[in-house]
Amino acid sequence: MTSYFDKRWVKLPRGAEELEASVLAPGFRAGATHCGLKDGGETDVAVLVCDSPDVKSSVLLTRNAAAAAPIRVCRDNLDAAAVRAIAVNSGNANAATGDQGYRDALEMQSATASALGLDPREVAVAETGVIGVPLEIDLVTEGVRKAASSLGRDRATGFTRAIMTTDRAPKNLSVKAGGVTISAQAKGAGMIEPGFATMLCFVQTDAQIDDPEAGLRLATDRSFERITVDGQMSTNDTVVLQATGETETPLPHGLLEQVLLALALEVVADGEGAERIGRVEVTGARDPGEAERVARAIANSPLVKTALTGRDANWGRIAQAAGMALAGEEMDEPGPHSIDFQELGAETDEAEIGIALGRGNASAHVYFSDLTHEYIHINAEYTT
Amino acid sequence: MTSYFDKRWVKLPRGAEELEASVLAPGFRAGATHCGLKDGGETDVAVLVCDSPDVKSSVLLTRNAAAAAPIRVCRDNLDAAAVRAIAVNSGNANAATGDQGYRDALEMQSATASALGLDPREVAVAETGVIGVPLEIDLVTEGVRKAASSLGRDRATGFTRAIMTTDRAPKNLSVKAGGVTISAQAKGAGMIEPGFATMLCFVQTDAQIDDPEAGLRLATDRSFERITVDGQMSTNDTVVLQATGETETPLPHGLLEQVLLALALEVVADGEGAERIGRVEVTGARDPGEAERVARAIANSPLVKTALTGRDANWGRIAQAAGMALAGEEMDEPGPHSIDFQELGAETDEAEIGIALGRGNASAHVYFSDLTHEYIHINAEYTT
Repeated sequence: MTSYFDKRWVKLPRGAEELEASVLAPGFRAGATHCGLKDGGETDVAVLVCDSPDVKSSVLLTRNAAAAAPIRVCRDNLDAAAVRAIAVNSGNANAATGDQGYRDALEMQSATASALGLDPREVAVAETGVIGVPLEIDLVTEGVRKAASSLGRDRATGFTRAIMTTDRAPKNLSVKAGGVTISAQAKGAGMIEPGFATMLCFVQTDAQIDDPEAGLRLATDRSFERITVDGQMSTNDTVVLQATGETETPLPHGLLEQVLLALALEVVADGEGAERIGRVEVTGARDPGEAERVARAIANSPLVKTALTGRDANWGRIAQAAGMALAGEEMDEPGPHSIDFQELGAETDEAEIGIALGRGNASAHVYFSDLTHEYIHINAEYTT
Repeated sequence: MTSYFDKRWVKLPRGAEELEASVLAPGFRAGATHCGLKDGGETDVAVLVCDSPDVKSSVLLTRNAAAAAPIRVCRDNLDAAAVRAIAVNSGNANAATGDQGYRDALEMQSATASALGLDPREVAVAETGVIGVPLEIDLVTEGVRKAASSLGRDRATGFTRAIMTTDRAPKNLSVKAGGVTISAQAKGAGMIEPGFATMLCFVQTDAQIDDPEAGLRLATDRSFERITVDGQMSTNDTVVLQATGETETPLPHGLLEQVLLALALEVVADGEGAERIGRVEVTGARDPGEAERVARAIANSPLVKTALTGRDANWGRIAQAAGMALAGEEMDEPGPHSIDFQELGAETDEAEIGIALGRGNASAHVYFSDLTHEYIHINAEYTT
């Protein structure tokens, strides 16, 4: 079993143990099937259910103003603090599909609820795939019923496979620590189908989480909010945390963050065309917003990304991007004295770079993938 | 002679006539030589002089906070309203070179002034090329003297060649209209040497311009400020306008803008790896800032750029980028009804795309190049 915690930037808390990834946390079951959205018979619809009516949950949704129909349904018609079940399809993002798309997402929600004996407001819906194409809702509702009839606790990997699009491999893990179990599944590769990037992540635990919203927000801020593949915000991004509280034991400190970070780094490593991944740390900024702005300018610079690909220890590209982020302001001239750049040129798959701005005490970091010929190939040469 | 006004987005004013590009406006002379910064004997230092002591001028400099030494010298030690001469070298940007770089740029300025019998504050300096490498100032001062001793009115193309780095061809033109002549030279190709993008543009005229600063600002806002190759702001960008006023005749309305736009579009078309160029027009925004934000998000999206390369009429990538620029706000769902996208997929070299936001009356447009394998090749596979 390969570990999700073998990257230098992520750490399993002391005493924690990675379980077989296909097993969900106690109290959760999943199922998946092929409904026909994807060619070739691959699974493309999946359901995940919490058996406990006392579930506490939190849901984070994309801020993209052109949000997809399932996002709008989750915003309008979901009890985000008590999500019992999640229905997901891949192959069609149901984005930019107008009022019909919205009605289809509602129907997907109600079909799932009725198959599981739940209220529709207890069911979150998520979709990923091509955009601007009407959803074949009859296939999806039929698929949801089939998936709901084949639920099992050991189907986490099957669930994860069914939500993949261009991901190279399923991204799911399970960890036991401090008497509780946490399982999580993610998908995302920067771009999914020509048209849209989507990141989905579902997390289950039998721990007791008093404030799932604050906990998820904090852990996401330090994981999925710290990554970039192509700087493009998706229309469909969704993260859901569900906790049964059955163990009456809290999550070990930092565990949720490390689990999400492990999956977030997998998304970066699986970014379209990615060969190397980097982490940029900006220190000495005047305030956190400034640090963030500089870190993102560096991480999203096509010049820094191609330097990462080309193993070119080119600190000038870091200096230029930082200067751009601070345009119009005074700045100490950056140079080799203030820039960590050597790992850009190293043989390692992971490179850590940094810049010390010398303006204050705030810092920020961002993980990013490189920019390769394969990225161009995927995005310029596949056509819809 | 190929015309600079053959692109659909630029128009020579009625009655205007394109002159032989190598001839400067009356009252201006230029010279160039090889001083040794570039290998292979190519010219790499150039001087341009206005013979009239009554010159009026305006200078625009990059806002990048990590500005190069010549930029800082122009900010600190130049009478920007009365620039008599310009000295330029290519092959070394003299950026991120610390105090020594600043002293070198000052010495380049004073050597030029002394060769021409001017005050140093009448001489603008500009540099482009590799960064972080100490300038061989003795070569430059020797070169400046040599260039200053071989001045001629018909040396505009020689001047332009000497300021090129990775440009595929010199970008210079000369136009006569309404009794006045305007000549202009530009360089830029997105990235110049691994490390820095630089755009330089020098404009000369015998017209009378009462407020060169306002005129240049407006024309630049509508030309060089409307283009993007890789979204990266340079450390060395410089635009200089010089007007002798000898004809006592104003510039025909819009001529300066069209001349700069013609050169700006050449910079885009010559962008690193560029195969196609696009123009995106955003209408129906709430305010100009919003329109600008959306237009830049679309023009700089690697997904839109690769769709332009791949001739993929993928409107979803336009919708997604617009939604990202408006993150957190309400937005009418974009779709084929509100997006002009067909030309993305057309056979033409130039593609015009657009999005109608339906939120208000403000609009903005940006010209951009595509993202190709050659861009990756240039930036990932050339190493310093």
